[in-house]
Amino acid sequence: MSSIPADLAAWCTANEARALDELCAWLRIPSVSARSEHAADCADAAQFLATELTRIGFTTSIEPTPGHPIVVGEWRAAGPNAPTLLIYGHYDVQPAEPLELWTTPAFEPTIRDGRLYARGSVDDKGQLHLHIKALEAHMATRGALPCNVIVLAEGEEEVGSVNLEAFLERERDRLACDAVVISDSTMFAPGIPSILSSLRGMAYLQIDVRGANGDLHSGMYGGAVVNPAMALARILATMHDETGRIAIPGFYDEVRPFPDHVRAQMRELPFSDDALMHEVGVSALGGEPGYTTLERLWTRPTCEVNGLLSGYTGEGAKTVLPAVSMAKVSFRLVPDQHPERIADLVRAHVERVAPAGVTVTVTHLHGGRPWRAELKGPIIDAGKAALEAAFGREPVITGEGGSIPVVGDFERILGAPVLLMGFGLPGENAHAPDEWISVENYTLGIRAGAVLYDEFARRAARS
Amino acid sequence: MSSIPADLAAWCTANEARALDELCAWLRIPSVSARSEHAADCADAAQFLATELTRIGFTTSIEPTPGHPIVVGEWRAAGPNAPTLLIYGHYDVQPAEPLELWTTPAFEPTIRDGRLYARGSVDDKGQLHLHIKALEAHMATRGALPCNVIVLAEGEEEVGSVNLEAFLERERDRLACDAVVISDSTMFAPGIPSILSSLRGMAYLQIDVRGANGDLHSGMYGGAVVNPAMALARILATMHDETGRIAIPGFYDEVRPFPDHVRAQMRELPFSDDALMHEVGVSALGGEPGYTTLERLWTRPTCEVNGLLSGYTGEGAKTVLPAVSMAKVSFRLVPDQHPERIADLVRAHVERVAPAGVTVTVTHLHGGRPWRAELKGPIIDAGKAALEAAFGREPVITGEGGSIPVVGDFERILGAPVLLMGFGLPGENAHAPDEWISVENYTLGIRAGAVLYDEFARRAARS
Repeated sequence: MSSIPADLAAWCTANEARALDELCAWLRIPSVSARSEHAADCADAAQFLATELTRIGFTTSIEPTPGHPIVVGEWRAAGPNAPTLLIYGHYDVQPAEPLELWTTPAFEPTIRDGRLYARGSVDDKGQLHLHIKALEAHMATRGALPCNVIVLAEGEEEVGSVNLEAFLERERDRLACDAVVISDSTMFAPGIPSILSSLRGMAYLQIDVRGANGDLHSGMYGGAVVNPAMALARILATMHDETGRIAIPGFYDEVRPFPDHVRAQMRELPFSDDALMHEVGVSALGGEPGYTTLERLWTRPTCEVNGLLSGYTGEGAKTVLPAVSMAKVSFRLVPDQHPERIADLVRAHVERVAPAGVTVTVTHLHGGRPWRAELKGPIIDAGKAALEAAFGREPVITGEGGSIPVVGDFERILGAPVLLMGFGLPGENAHAPDEWISVENYTLGIRAGAVLYDEFARRAARS
Repeated sequence: MSSIPADLAAWCTANEARALDELCAWLRIPSVSARSEHAADCADAAQFLATELTRIGFTTSIEPTPGHPIVVGEWRAAGPNAPTLLIYGHYDVQPAEPLELWTTPAFEPTIRDGRLYARGSVDDKGQLHLHIKALEAHMATRGALPCNVIVLAEGEEEVGSVNLEAFLERERDRLACDAVVISDSTMFAPGIPSILSSLRGMAYLQIDVRGANGDLHSGMYGGAVVNPAMALARILATMHDETGRIAIPGFYDEVRPFPDHVRAQMRELPFSDDALMHEVGVSALGGEPGYTTLERLWTRPTCEVNGLLSGYTGEGAKTVLPAVSMAKVSFRLVPDQHPERIADLVRAHVERVAPAGVTVTVTHLHGGRPWRAELKGPIIDAGKAALEAAFGREPVITGEGGSIPVVGDFERILGAPVLLMGFGLPGENAHAPDEWISVENYTLGIRAGAVLYDEFARRAARS
């Protein structure tokens, strides 16, 4: 079994408290990329990261984009013959609303029961920060890194990484690397380190339905003027059939089934529907027939309503026939579904089923491609060794239902394999109130990162 | 043709400007009954009315209720052998939201193009105020009214008149009368005075769907945890069939069809679907098959979504699987449907169609019974004469899609027939931004009221 070199382990132990303090300072910056009023906070969060990277010895630049900036840190002193590892993460966070459901405020990091609570703690500032500390461990103890390292952090992951692809294309030569590591995912369970082999993609749409040119009295007009809120409900209800299968024509056409041996391995993982029901507090699960829960979450596409708004939503009763209604609807995609093509199918379907008397607009807010790993080569082997050294057991290979849309871009544009080595945990509330990261996973993650660079440098040089 | 007595006509002309000023002062008080933060404003609006009634010679009291107070003004000097007329109205108003859609602020009355814009201008402060001015016309010119008059104004009409029925029961003797007149409805068209012969009732429900115990990441849980927003959409979509007929079992069981001669008369009214479509800005109408638009609006029950809320509704995209969703759904009812029984049918239906994995709560927020008039007797004849005198033409008999839930209560508890003589107009935005009343209708309404009391006193004494 691999183990953590003594010098790195000692540094990690001695610097744990300071590392957490620094992370908390970063988490206090409300870098919500979806809200234009937080643009300055996003810039501050980028600057914070750049300052850290410079301090530990990286050459750093903050690259403007049409949206929030991209931070690039480079350490090239291993020389042109050494392998290069690119570490990707994001410094932006989800909106914190509904604020009243947070036990402690979203941007005032608080440790309770071994968990660090804050918006961005696990998604993704905490998981990017542990790499910065792992890099610092090498620089502080050895004065060097075992390979060339590029740190690339964007500020638009939560709004679809809208400017990253163009940046990768433009900076393709500068960002050339032998592998990419991303820590922005969850472990299968506490104490079970995991390498993630597949991600779902996404097509995120907004459906706006407009009826009359203003809100109407539901008594004076109801029964004759088409109700946009009811029309929206009826449109949404056509998206699944009675069994739970998505009923949009053509939706499954490009789905490439997961290999049987991957499905078989997934069925061997210690997973309990009862435990999931208990965790989230429901008495039954749902979903597409013919698949286990893990298969539904990891290998099958979905259609979810993320938001609904129409008419009067305050206290009491208002007898209004609303002029407009809105739904945010997202589709998780699996290989080889394509976000734009799915958006086109949905748009065509919505236009086909929308009743006369309302106008419907379908806007594709953002999309990301699904991804499936090859699961071989130096970076995967290094990841297995690093996780084993830090956690004391071999990692399992998992899938995940979430999206990291850029993974496919890295492979396609940089031609480098991607290792997804995450330190989140189920129930971490990544996009909900009371988001948290396990403090233990954060500190073990620093160790795993530190070992990863060694192992990758050794294996990539050999290969 | 009846005409307006010269003394009353002269007073009305001389006092029009002052009457409008006083109405505007009343409209500036934001007496929104649905919002607890406006309780003091409701009390102020009640006090304003009581002060006015006292000033013109009424004995006035402000009666507390568990909610907003009821104002009672009495003038009994016509003596115990003279008939008594009860004038009912309400001083509360609908919420003004969405505020940004008002051309001028909701509580800053403004006259433009012959229309007085303000929340409550037509529903119902303006239409109650014209009676106060008509009473003042008699008192100022003749020092007396032609019959005994009770003015009864509540402050909870927009939240279902929840305390009025008990008040009528308790004060049955004090409120004993020979007829009731209510001006809280619309004329068929500009220049066409109208007597309203039917009102729809209402059952207003809120449906709350709860899934997981908190918002979840739609990628990590989507496809296995049932989505409350999608569940709500599917529930709402079961409420109508494909043709537009309501599909809740038992919903139509107690509907008593309108007589053929009433339907025939409705078809003779000058009504144009195209004009309605143009007015509200839609390219098609909808509704229950087998009925004309006027029949759908006046004689058939409906199911409307008044509000929808779930998950993330702000700018951009948030990939949340919401924990809860909410719909406000109201049903317009026709004789002999009963609000409580309809609420029970809806609750049973929703519970039957709700999927496993969510819990659904159906709350009956308020209800009101439908009503149909007998269309004969002194108060109806007096109303016809008064409208003819003020507008120069015979009124038409109409139905209306809106609800005045208390109409049935007056007939049942006080045993008195009700005249619905309204001065609103189509497009008045009663429950929407830019509510208005025609200034001409307001001033003609004062004249019609003044004549009505004379005509009623004469006919009721004779009968």
